[in-house]
Amino acid sequence: MTKAIFFHAGCPVCVSAEQQFAKALDPSRYDVEIVHLGEQRSRLAEAEAAGVKSVPAMVIAGATFHINFGAALADLK
Amino acid sequence: MTKAIFFHAGCPVCVSAEQQFAKALDPSRYDVEIVHLGEQRSRLAEAEAAGVKSVPAMVIAGATFHINFGAALADLK
Repeated sequence: MTKAIFFHAGCPVCVSAEQQFAKALDPSRYDVEIVHLGEQRSRLAEAEAAGVKSVPAMVIAGATFHINFGAALADLK
Repeated sequence: MTKAIFFHAGCPVCVSAEQQFAKALDPSRYDVEIVHLGEQRSRLAEAEAAGVKSVPAMVIAGATFHINFGAALADLK
C-alpha cells in the first residue's frame, strides 16, 4: 500500500478537493489519511516538512501536490 | 463510471503529477483520459471551457483541479 495524506483546513476549496480527489484514489493501492490542520495543529510541522505551502494538498509517497488554493499554511499557524 | 480528464503538456511537473496522481485514481470508478495539450491543440478550447488555467490539471466530473504549476494554458496556444 502506498501512503497518501490529504492535508486540508475545512475551507470550501478543501472540501471539494477532498470529495472529488482524496476519495477518488484506488483504495486497493492507497492508504489515504485525511488531516484537518485546523483541528490537528500538531501535524503542521509534518506538513511543512513535506513541502506543503498551502491547502488543500496531497502528499503521495513523499511527493507533494498542491490542489487549487484554499489557504496558505502560514495562515493556519 | 465517472469521467476524469488529466490535461498536461509534457513538462516535468506534469509527468510527476501524471504518474503519481492520474494513475492513482480507482480504475473501477473512474475513466481517466490523459490529454497532452502540446500534441492535441484541438483540445485547448475544451480545457479552457472547463476552467483550466494551467497544467497539470484534472477535471473530474466537471470540477477542475489545478495540481501544482507546470505551464500556463495561455503559453500553450
